[in-house]
Amino acid sequence: MAKKISDSGINEKFQSRPKRIIEKDGSFNIIKKGGAPRNLYQQLIAMNWPRFFFTTLMFYLGVNLVFACAYFVIGVEYLNGVPEDRPLAGFLYCFFFSVQTFTTVGYGAIHPVGLLANAVATIEAMFGLMGFALITGLLYGKFSRPDSKLKFSENVLFHKEGDKYEMHFQMINARDTLIIEPSVRVLLKLYHHKKKLRNFYNLDLRISKIMFFPTNWRIVHEITEKSPLYSLKEEDLIDMDVEIIILFQGYDESFNQQIYVTHSYGDEQILWNKHFLPSYNTDEDGNTVLDMETIDAFEND
Amino acid sequence: MAKKISDSGINEKFQSRPKRIIEKDGSFNIIKKGGAPRNLYQQLIAMNWPRFFFTTLMFYLGVNLVFACAYFVIGVEYLNGVPEDRPLAGFLYCFFFSVQTFTTVGYGAIHPVGLLANAVATIEAMFGLMGFALITGLLYGKFSRPDSKLKFSENVLFHKEGDKYEMHFQMINARDTLIIEPSVRVLLKLYHHKKKLRNFYNLDLRISKIMFFPTNWRIVHEITEKSPLYSLKEEDLIDMDVEIIILFQGYDESFNQQIYVTHSYGDEQILWNKHFLPSYNTDEDGNTVLDMETIDAFEND
Amino acid sequence: MAKKISDSGINEKFQSRPKRIIEKDGSFNIIKKGGAPRNLYQQLIAMNWPRFFFTTLMFYLGVNLVFACAYFVIGVEYLNGVPEDRPLAGFLYCFFFSVQTFTTVGYGAIHPVGLLANAVATIEAMFGLMGFALITGLLYGKFSRPDSKLKFSENVLFHKEGDKYEMHFQMINARDTLIIEPSVRVLLKLYHHKKKLRNFYNLDLRISKIMFFPTNWRIVHEITEKSPLYSLKEEDLIDMDVEIIILFQGYDESFNQQIYVTHSYGDEQILWNKHFLPSYNTDEDGNTVLDMETIDAFEND
Amino acid sequence: MAKKISDSGINEKFQSRPKRIIEKDGSFNIIKKGGAPRNLYQQLIAMNWPRFFFTTLMFYLGVNLVFACAYFVIGVEYLNGVPEDRPLAGFLYCFFFSVQTFTTVGYGAIHPVGLLANAVATIEAMFGLMGFALITGLLYGKFSRPDSKLKFSENVLFHKEGDKYEMHFQMINARDTLIIEPSVRVLLKLYHHKKKLRNFYNLDLRISKIMFFPTNWRIVHEITEKSPLYSLKEEDLIDMDVEIIILFQGYDESFNQQIYVTHSYGDEQILWNKHFLPSYNTDEDGNTVLDMETIDAFEND
Repeated sequence: MAKKISDSGINEKFQSRPKRIIEKDGSFNIIKKGGAPRNLYQQLIAMNWPRFFFTTLMFYLGVNLVFACAYFVIGVEYLNGVPEDRPLAGFLYCFFFSVQTFTTVGYGAIHPVGLLANAVATIEAMFGLMGFALITGLLYGKFSRPDSKLKFSENVLFHKEGDKYEMHFQMINARDTLIIEPSVRVLLKLYHHKKKLRNFYNLDLRISKIMFFPTNWRIVHEITEKSPLYSLKEEDLIDMDVEIIILFQGYDESFNQQIYVTHSYGDEQILWNKHFLPSYNTDEDGNTVLDMETIDAFEND
Repeated sequence: MAKKISDSGINEKFQSRPKRIIEKDGSFNIIKKGGAPRNLYQQLIAMNWPRFFFTTLMFYLGVNLVFACAYFVIGVEYLNGVPEDRPLAGFLYCFFFSVQTFTTVGYGAIHPVGLLANAVATIEAMFGLMGFALITGLLYGKFSRPDSKLKFSENVLFHKEGDKYEMHFQMINARDTLIIEPSVRVLLKLYHHKKKLRNFYNLDLRISKIMFFPTNWRIVHEITEKSPLYSLKEEDLIDMDVEIIILFQGYDESFNQQIYVTHSYGDEQILWNKHFLPSYNTDEDGNTVLDMETIDAFEND
Repeated sequence: MAKKISDSGINEKFQSRPKRIIEKDGSFNIIKKGGAPRNLYQQLIAMNWPRFFFTTLMFYLGVNLVFACAYFVIGVEYLNGVPEDRPLAGFLYCFFFSVQTFTTVGYGAIHPVGLLANAVATIEAMFGLMGFALITGLLYGKFSRPDSKLKFSENVLFHKEGDKYEMHFQMINARDTLIIEPSVRVLLKLYHHKKKLRNFYNLDLRISKIMFFPTNWRIVHEITEKSPLYSLKEEDLIDMDVEIIILFQGYDESFNQQIYVTHSYGDEQILWNKHFLPSYNTDEDGNTVLDMETIDAFEND
Repeated sequence: MAKKISDSGINEKFQSRPKRIIEKDGSFNIIKKGGAPRNLYQQLIAMNWPRFFFTTLMFYLGVNLVFACAYFVIGVEYLNGVPEDRPLAGFLYCFFFSVQTFTTVGYGAIHPVGLLANAVATIEAMFGLMGFALITGLLYGKFSRPDSKLKFSENVLFHKEGDKYEMHFQMINARDTLIIEPSVRVLLKLYHHKKKLRNFYNLDLRISKIMFFPTNWRIVHEITEKSPLYSLKEEDLIDMDVEIIILFQGYDESFNQQIYVTHSYGDEQILWNKHFLPSYNTDEDGNTVLDMETIDAFEND
């Protein structure tokens, strides 16, 4: 009998039938009431590039608008070089002066005169330096985040090997980097309707850790008597809201960092009596060729 | 019999009854005579944001004040554009020129003339660059520090399960991030008054490591014959200054860093014959809903 | 019998005889069809210094050329200080003004007049700050990458010790740093022509992990009955396209980072009935002297 | 019998009696002929602050001197604002203009005229940005290096406990930070004069890993029949050039980094029949007080 794992970090007993835990895109189906969101820095780091640039631009224009107003309120006569008779042009020149101060360009064609305007410029130049320091940190943070591309096969195959089944799925390292000492852990979730209980089981893998992962890796779980999947049929799995949860871990040599990837398969992704085709080959020169497209190629047993 | 751990990093024998080791806020009750404080960088990194900004501002104004004095001593006639007849205005313009040099804004409306003023400006501009470099490093350091929000339940519950007790406490990951492969170690501290000895014991946990920690986690220690808590009663624990020390470890996927959290429970936080209520549920859509407020909800056995 | 490892991350069955997996320079012989290259940041980080500086310079000139064109199209009359009568000189001054804006030097001898020129300068100054932030991150990224220099002996020696063989190779830490808790794993690849199968085997090492690695380290595999190399002769190894794949791991104390090095030996690098000479000695003062040149010194058994 | 470890990373057989492996200051007694030094970045990172500032200042002045020469050779008439009739003043103004360009201050009182001077200024401003980026990276690198202060007791004590000896030494975490999950490994080196062999042995510790290390930690090796020190007398240890090599490892919570410290004791630091005094106490408030000075306090058995 397979040993149940409680306290899996995701609680067990439910009033109503719960959804899948991990969505196909890797996000978790959990709503935290009263919880804290990611902090601002993390949100900016996680933002995609177009949104990040737009946010930066808005911040840049916003800060300069605020300081432009300050200079305008103090009076355009305290900014030497700003036209004093046309208010709109005067405001625009206040804005441009603000930009020249914030970015520390400081052409000097416009420059502050008197205590107040100089004091505001003193503050703005400091803000400029700090804003710039912030952007430097954010850009470095965004760039140095590992962006490994692990592709999982679309399906999990239940392949009949002799008189017993094996569960197969496979992964490809799509990026041109090396992942060192990758390892995989697989968790099985089964939902018992009568007891309204969600149970978790570890699935033993034939090989759960390899030396490096330059190409593809087929993960195999043998459905023996010890497996919690033993004696379960296709309809049982559907009925029990089966979910196969995967935690991948490895060292990305190009980022010098440990990476973690979570993935999940639902019942609709399980196919019976099929096996994967090889997704690699050798070309005329003897090079190993790995075709990303073939990760999902399978045939009937 | 439970095995005592000596050499736990916190010594054992005392002249007087020692205080709790770890306070509720996670700080340690240890005074180091002759020890070194954290270095300046670490202090700035650990500082909260308002204090950090105030310190930066003071530093910025202070450095510019020093350089303003230097230019003023050299003579306002060596800064072209500074009014020479009014000393106060002259000093203020020295200060603004210093700001324009330190921040590298350099409008040029005020500019140095002659060897000495130029030499000082040369030094100040270099200081400006280094000061800015420092701020960049500090801001990045502050932002890239993991700020995970682990909430521990206010109480430890001694729950009667059948004929034996279990010790329960629980944790919630309040931030909207994923903590991977979290693990927990629990240490029990008991103080023996007669021998003036402080002893430490490891407490075995039903499950001490899980795959990921998106929501909450209930930690269970079974008080069997092997447990150092076996046969101890409520009044014994109070008398022995019981302290339950927790070390949490996990990988924060949003910061790409291993995080460690220490926590401690004292005797006044231990409640007998109670158990926790579930702190999660599913909403109409089948999403798992975790309510941060319910982490402390319990009822009598 | 030695246990075969499948699922090694490099697949097993081939249409034609595959090449060596890892080349002498440590690169992998794998072509990924449809895969993603390293991202731009990683490419710039991995670039050698001359190419990096050239790329930076081209980027710097290119950006300024684009903005110079913009200012020229707006009209040189909107840049105060630019000669208006000679188009070439006018364009060059547009370029220099662009440089002064992008780098935030901003002498001010040339400065924008009117809405459009000022607006473009506003954008360019922001680009300048971001470009600079990028360079800061890239330089830090390049510099903080571990660049440990591990030298492997050119040959693997099969040394006869008593009545059985041992496989020897050695490594030197050529850089003046300390590598802490280094460990080595060795994988044997054999290709079976008839079955068109590539098999992998772990080779047990006499000592696979040491405390620190200041100098050189000789790695020894004893070819006992348990070894997959047992009973294989020189011609067998050549025929089976033998490849000895090494994964080295350790903590580089000067970079405060875990480092990984992959290496590989082919059949032409295996020499029989030889052993290494000591590659160290003590000088008159009792210092241990390690000569990098002697790592490849061996003699007949 | 204790098992000898060969292949310890430091070779075994010597022509002359070798010196101590690790000096008291933690440096290794190894000379690498033909090896590579640390790279420039690592040297700058490891440099102490006064030397670092001096190097930076020299670099700053040097670069500006080179560019000053370039402007001077081009001709002072191409730098508007530079006195043309006095060569020395002219050169100094070239230098100050260079500074204003390199730091991107750019007052504009001096500004380039004509193609050549502008082109050189274009290059210098780019150098300025890169130099600044470099300083930013170096300062961050220097500051984010863990600088934990572990103090080892000056002596190793051989303390008689009942009828057998124990080897004791102790460590203090002198800095006001927490080190999490510290562990210690101890290696014994003995030199056999007749065979000219240097042998290494692992010493088992009563406790080799603890949960955290806020204060002090006493490390104990019991000299039982299994110990390589068993039956060795004081004069044997001196004769065999005994060296006790220590590798400490732990996670520094203030730097969010794993730290490693190597240490070594020679025969002159071993004292027999002594034991350490407690180096801590509690004050009136029950706080644990740790006095750094008392780490070396011991008394006769």
